[in-house]
Amino acid sequence: MAGNSYGTLFKLSTFGESHGEALGGIIDGCPAGIVLDLENIQYEMSRRKPGQSAIVTQRKEEDEVQFLSGIFEGKTTGTPIGFIIPNTNQKSDDYSHIKDTYRPSHADYVYEKKYGIRDYRGGGRSSARETASRVVAGAIAKQVLKDIKINAFVSSVGEIFIDKPYQELDFSKIESNPVRCPDEEAAAKMEEHIRDIRKQGDTVGGTITCVIQNVPIGLGEPVFDKLHAELGKAMLSINAVKGFEYGSGFCGARMKGSEHNDLYNPDGTTKTNLSGGIQGGISNGMDVYFRVAFKPVATLIQKQEVLDNQGNIVELTGKGRHDPCVVPRAVPIVEAMAALVLADFYLLNKTYL
Amino acid sequence: MAGNSYGTLFKLSTFGESHGEALGGIIDGCPAGIVLDLENIQYEMSRRKPGQSAIVTQRKEEDEVQFLSGIFEGKTTGTPIGFIIPNTNQKSDDYSHIKDTYRPSHADYVYEKKYGIRDYRGGGRSSARETASRVVAGAIAKQVLKDIKINAFVSSVGEIFIDKPYQELDFSKIESNPVRCPDEEAAAKMEEHIRDIRKQGDTVGGTITCVIQNVPIGLGEPVFDKLHAELGKAMLSINAVKGFEYGSGFCGARMKGSEHNDLYNPDGTTKTNLSGGIQGGISNGMDVYFRVAFKPVATLIQKQEVLDNQGNIVELTGKGRHDPCVVPRAVPIVEAMAALVLADFYLLNKTYL
Amino acid sequence: MAGNSYGTLFKLSTFGESHGEALGGIIDGCPAGIVLDLENIQYEMSRRKPGQSAIVTQRKEEDEVQFLSGIFEGKTTGTPIGFIIPNTNQKSDDYSHIKDTYRPSHADYVYEKKYGIRDYRGGGRSSARETASRVVAGAIAKQVLKDIKINAFVSSVGEIFIDKPYQELDFSKIESNPVRCPDEEAAAKMEEHIRDIRKQGDTVGGTITCVIQNVPIGLGEPVFDKLHAELGKAMLSINAVKGFEYGSGFCGARMKGSEHNDLYNPDGTTKTNLSGGIQGGISNGMDVYFRVAFKPVATLIQKQEVLDNQGNIVELTGKGRHDPCVVPRAVPIVEAMAALVLADFYLLNKTYL
Amino acid sequence: MAGNSYGTLFKLSTFGESHGEALGGIIDGCPAGIVLDLENIQYEMSRRKPGQSAIVTQRKEEDEVQFLSGIFEGKTTGTPIGFIIPNTNQKSDDYSHIKDTYRPSHADYVYEKKYGIRDYRGGGRSSARETASRVVAGAIAKQVLKDIKINAFVSSVGEIFIDKPYQELDFSKIESNPVRCPDEEAAAKMEEHIRDIRKQGDTVGGTITCVIQNVPIGLGEPVFDKLHAELGKAMLSINAVKGFEYGSGFCGARMKGSEHNDLYNPDGTTKTNLSGGIQGGISNGMDVYFRVAFKPVATLIQKQEVLDNQGNIVELTGKGRHDPCVVPRAVPIVEAMAALVLADFYLLNKTYL
Repeated sequence: MAGNSYGTLFKLSTFGESHGEALGGIIDGCPAGIVLDLENIQYEMSRRKPGQSAIVTQRKEEDEVQFLSGIFEGKTTGTPIGFIIPNTNQKSDDYSHIKDTYRPSHADYVYEKKYGIRDYRGGGRSSARETASRVVAGAIAKQVLKDIKINAFVSSVGEIFIDKPYQELDFSKIESNPVRCPDEEAAAKMEEHIRDIRKQGDTVGGTITCVIQNVPIGLGEPVFDKLHAELGKAMLSINAVKGFEYGSGFCGARMKGSEHNDLYNPDGTTKTNLSGGIQGGISNGMDVYFRVAFKPVATLIQKQEVLDNQGNIVELTGKGRHDPCVVPRAVPIVEAMAALVLADFYLLNKTYL
Repeated sequence: MAGNSYGTLFKLSTFGESHGEALGGIIDGCPAGIVLDLENIQYEMSRRKPGQSAIVTQRKEEDEVQFLSGIFEGKTTGTPIGFIIPNTNQKSDDYSHIKDTYRPSHADYVYEKKYGIRDYRGGGRSSARETASRVVAGAIAKQVLKDIKINAFVSSVGEIFIDKPYQELDFSKIESNPVRCPDEEAAAKMEEHIRDIRKQGDTVGGTITCVIQNVPIGLGEPVFDKLHAELGKAMLSINAVKGFEYGSGFCGARMKGSEHNDLYNPDGTTKTNLSGGIQGGISNGMDVYFRVAFKPVATLIQKQEVLDNQGNIVELTGKGRHDPCVVPRAVPIVEAMAALVLADFYLLNKTYL
Repeated sequence: MAGNSYGTLFKLSTFGESHGEALGGIIDGCPAGIVLDLENIQYEMSRRKPGQSAIVTQRKEEDEVQFLSGIFEGKTTGTPIGFIIPNTNQKSDDYSHIKDTYRPSHADYVYEKKYGIRDYRGGGRSSARETASRVVAGAIAKQVLKDIKINAFVSSVGEIFIDKPYQELDFSKIESNPVRCPDEEAAAKMEEHIRDIRKQGDTVGGTITCVIQNVPIGLGEPVFDKLHAELGKAMLSINAVKGFEYGSGFCGARMKGSEHNDLYNPDGTTKTNLSGGIQGGISNGMDVYFRVAFKPVATLIQKQEVLDNQGNIVELTGKGRHDPCVVPRAVPIVEAMAALVLADFYLLNKTYL
Repeated sequence: MAGNSYGTLFKLSTFGESHGEALGGIIDGCPAGIVLDLENIQYEMSRRKPGQSAIVTQRKEEDEVQFLSGIFEGKTTGTPIGFIIPNTNQKSDDYSHIKDTYRPSHADYVYEKKYGIRDYRGGGRSSARETASRVVAGAIAKQVLKDIKINAFVSSVGEIFIDKPYQELDFSKIESNPVRCPDEEAAAKMEEHIRDIRKQGDTVGGTITCVIQNVPIGLGEPVFDKLHAELGKAMLSINAVKGFEYGSGFCGARMKGSEHNDLYNPDGTTKTNLSGGIQGGISNGMDVYFRVAFKPVATLIQKQEVLDNQGNIVELTGKGRHDPCVVPRAVPIVEAMAALVLADFYLLNKTYL
């Protein structure tokens, strides 16, 4: 019952329920002397926050982070950084109708079975609202990582995919549209599709691709804490994620070795990068890239069957303000978790004599 | 530099290089009083070991595990179980030719860059031989888990896939063919394909599907140590793995919520199981199932370009005895890692008051 | 740089500086379904808080704990309990005079050398104020432990000692005097001595004895995480602690085995208890008891030599409101840390099959 | 049930029972590229091993360590170092007489109650024989620490104490006598006393003082993992230890602040060192020193009352070959644990940016 911390040297612990007084966390192990760019942290929060565009939930949440410790005269002190994100404008009555019911493909049922009690308001601890704390820590981790560039973007919504390799994309366009897809043509189709889906009171899944550039050689700790294994765990810990692949991923399983091997250039770089910048669990200096699959949000604004705590199947019509598609808001979360993983390995590498 | 342990309450730590004196490990946290079935442990070892069939590497390794502690009069004592697997019949000269070269898509280069030194014989620590220790621990974890049934099998080799849902497969047939594919028709094609690939001196990738039945409700520790997140990390820590998906996986990312939600039966089971037996990171009592992608083995018995430590690209013809396709031997490894993950959460659940 | 968490299954992480906006922490792993007695938690806080009597610092701090998560309708939910203790009435100007100086036997110098920066106000993170968070978590741990009784008390101040074995003391008298010494005669002498010391602007050390009753047999995890080893670490982590001994302690080192062995009664209890309720690192069902040594507070209200950051030795007269003797207020902290250690082992013991 | 690992970055995991096939361990996190002095490791083993002099147990054990991994061409590779110490010349029949009995002040009773089973031969896992693995790891940690000098010595046996401060002792004399006491006069008395005690079939306790010199400023991780807190835990985890104090220790609790404070010299060193080289849990560059109390060995070669597993009190005369006083052989163990603690913090300090 202690799964709420992530990392060893750069460690995030989080707390908070969707409709409690506040969310928050502790970042332990952030190096001292870093001049924090607080505006940038709030900017990352704004990328995750609800109500930011017409294709995400219209909940209004300010998501303003308050730092309580670990920062003195603008610099990190090496002591733990405590922070809270007050919950404002929560409409708990939105959820009274699910007090005694378990919504399909939600965590209602398992939380009640596991803990014998649950805060049913907005999913309580199982709400994706918890990821706000991850974005705070990830934004700080990015500032620790300095030159390492982490760019995530939406690579598919439903059946609409970007049909280009990431090398042909302009990451500066990621924020140019509400979908966070750098391919403007695909972005337009995705946005339209999300609008349609929302009109139907339905939801749709999608994928996010993340590309990490300027990764130093040597990050990752075999044999269990391989770089891609930690990235995979970090991504799979994000709400609604169903799959993770890096480099050639599942396609690689269909290939022959003679097609798949990345031949070297004399300088140690490779001509191709099906390895995804990782060999034997250790970064090799090439781009690290991976893809994350998100299922469609389970909350529908439609009538559907739910189970109540008396063992009856009853009809329920979803209420509240929900995302028709989660991937646009999940982009900064994917980046944040990637930053947490890298920061931990980055600090660990400094222990080498 | 301490990534060689897995688990918290049921913890495996491993050591050993491919061509050192021995591999081995320590299992710390195995409950006391378990009458160990040592034959079964050796049986699991035999499923992983080289030379077991015509379609795997013809290296002859006995892989005999020797237990050194933690067992008294046939029972576990609750103290750490230390074990070793002596390395026998290693031909170190097989590898002298790669002493100064970095093979494409191997860990040679990154180990040397990360550690400044590497045991080049057979890949040293990066060799899949290390997984023998995992199979020992996994076999013991299975005995701890008793009624939980873990079945992994080969679901694809290259472009050859099983075209049935797992519910239509007979798991008792998994061991009926050298591929470890329960669909005999597909198995035959896969076996033939692997034989062809080997003739070409090439290799091919594949996927393994794992189905876990009779999982109690409540395993998994949100928000970071979700059941599927730990399963993902465990699988991604296995050599050559490129991807992990559970339940609907990447397909789920293409679906609508109205198609994807698993509606409840009155008893709390669900009519469908796109969730893969996990909601909010916690097992819900349905089958837990997932799919793991393995890249083709990088060692080819062909001439190919390699980098030497002087920065020259030279030609090298792969020698030694290698697997044309890794998935048949990886099946027990996938089961072992799944067992380690479940044993940890299974013990953790006992801490609830 | 990540030493701000304690425990594995019942885990406390803390943050906060003496003069920051707030202190606080996260308790991860508290079992679900516990009806928390919040008044009792605030009562424990009041035992630690400044200004509670004439012999402690006259700082006025409300030390009111605010819970932000993990509690729903009065019960713990099994999710992390986040809490904060706002810093009120801090007079930062009290400390401006030490901005550039390192006080003898304080952490000023080492924090600046280790981190390159320090929050000098009131000692920042090194202030004993941090222990307020420990008392919150300890009070909750006590509620988890139910029947296990933890009683700490002041057993010496300077040269004044209780001259009775703890078995002859009435623990209900611990709170009957401001010193928290259950022996009223000794208590009176201690109180008078502390008043004298304060008049001199000096400080004095002391010891606290802690007795834990109704401890179930079997707590403790050899070989490294022995019950007394964890108790020792927990106590030594408290500000100003210089030593720890349990059972016969340092006296035991002067004895012969024939004097020291605890002979058994037929029921498994022992006739004597020089072992301090622990054998081989595991509780044996007898009382667990130990003694903790606290040095005198380093801050004197006298003129003394300090080092400044230019390498000059200068004279400084201590200001602010400080404790002439720390042990009366440290009693609830010792109990809190003991409760954290026991709660962790208590939950761990439930993992046995 | 997983208390058999110590450390985070420099991590030792141990296994093995007194009379099993072998003891051993895994050192994970040892930096790569260290040319190991194997003779020195074996030398440290010889300081701990039985039969080394007339005043220790006359058991003959070779205690020869065999390294199985992590070392290549004489250098550490950064991969885990696995090692075993075969158990030779164990006379299991020596212990058959205690199969059904619980010896006073031994772990027999608690192991059986905790685990429901125990390997009764020679105390099984609770035997001090386990510390042989610690000495191996400690000897390697010392080689990692290079310039940091760790010297432990016997400072008292029973009522015989060294009556000089450590600054007046010549550490080069520690190995000049079988007691490992650098004060030859005291050493002679101690040796004579131990001979008398052994003649009586009795045992006696003692203390070990450890002095660590050339410690860099900044080791230790407040607020829980303070340097002295970890040293305390490490020492208390050694068999038979009852107490730990550092710097002024328990004497400090009797002093006034005006006597206790260590005034600074302009260079940041202090004129006195009652702080024991640690302030706020962080090393300050002065000598770190501490004292460890060992109880008398519980096994007497006398008739004494024991409990049997039927609840009867019966008479038993201790057999076997035991130490009349444990401290001479415990000196290298204290040094080894100190080295493990320092190596972990030493590596951790390298993570600072």
